[in-house]
Amino acid sequence: MDAEAAVVGPLAEDLRVLNELSVVSEVDADAVGRAREHLEAARAILAEKTLDGPYGVRFTADGRQRSWGNAAVGLRNPIAPPLEFVKDDDGTVRADYFLRRGYEGPPGLTHGGISALILDQVLGYTATVNGCPGMTGTLTLRYRNPTPLGALHAEARVDRIEGIKAFVVGHISDGETVCVEAEGVFILPRWARERMAAEASAVTEAPAQD
Amino acid sequence: MDAEAAVVGPLAEDLRVLNELSVVSEVDADAVGRAREHLEAARAILAEKTLDGPYGVRFTADGRQRSWGNAAVGLRNPIAPPLEFVKDDDGTVRADYFLRRGYEGPPGLTHGGISALILDQVLGYTATVNGCPGMTGTLTLRYRNPTPLGALHAEARVDRIEGIKAFVVGHISDGETVCVEAEGVFILPRWARERMAAEASAVTEAPAQD
Repeated sequence: MDAEAAVVGPLAEDLRVLNELSVVSEVDADAVGRAREHLEAARAILAEKTLDGPYGVRFTADGRQRSWGNAAVGLRNPIAPPLEFVKDDDGTVRADYFLRRGYEGPPGLTHGGISALILDQVLGYTATVNGCPGMTGTLTLRYRNPTPLGALHAEARVDRIEGIKAFVVGHISDGETVCVEAEGVFILPRWARERMAAEASAVTEAPAQD
Repeated sequence: MDAEAAVVGPLAEDLRVLNELSVVSEVDADAVGRAREHLEAARAILAEKTLDGPYGVRFTADGRQRSWGNAAVGLRNPIAPPLEFVKDDDGTVRADYFLRRGYEGPPGLTHGGISALILDQVLGYTATVNGCPGMTGTLTLRYRNPTPLGALHAEARVDRIEGIKAFVVGHISDGETVCVEAEGVFILPRWARERMAAEASAVTEAPAQD
């Protein structure tokens, strides 16, 4: 992990813990007030210097993408669980991850939309690392069984490629049972290809994934 | 807004601001260190008394659901944008919402999975308030145009009801262009009906939506 990651990674992790406490804390109003004074102090410090626009995709010195702002995988992003991917030799992508209580939908269960967020990211990454960078064209989710909170597993593989479309399938499981199945079609839409062409003079790296 | 909401709502809002700053702050390592000391102080205060388990669904004195922990709509949940729904006389549900920079996927755009999270919630709520409470069975998303960050609009309506299944359609727009279309099938699966029956002796309210 580089020097910047060692600074901003723990900041995001602090906020992930606080995001969960915002949901489950039972302290009284006075205590919340005292906590908010500290949050305001932290806000004032962090707001002293900020980006003008969104984080976007940055590039490391060796040209690799740095999606640290991403809502599903971002090292810097407290909304992201986050996710770390492992690619097998056969192209299958796997991620073991942990969902705190802030990812709840039905009582005690993972929100179906959070499973969608994770599968969109896993499937899109799978397309990218198998040679088909693109954005989500369609995504179909089938909720087979309740998805608990806590330790979960996601994986995906490219089912087939047709022209500029990659068809990717995957699922989330709790280690024993498949909870959610997904199929996604990933494609570089015309507007993205045009935007990339326009930006090509400044950046010559691989296209961003979502 | 009741007394508890007036305490915990602003806490979550403070953290939404900090979640964005975690992505876009450019202050140096010393400043991040000072901010983290305040976050640790806030954490210690909020952790003094917490729920043992997930937030779940609570009920107000008049029996209405309180999904304050929900990852898409939760008043207490900093991960949620949040969302507030308006139901038209014809049963259509609408929500105007705002996405900060922490909801980014492709550079400068809303993460496709965040749009899925929002549409899952909007469509599920639409099923519930039109008399078909349930959980997501399937959800299909079609990404028609890039979804910006910032001010967005979502809406949904029940397309048809077949037995215990509600077919709901909806979309997200930026005010002019439809960005993402969705169709969802909502149903109370057997395990949820069994769980509700088991809990009926303690709680007699309507089933939870996701």
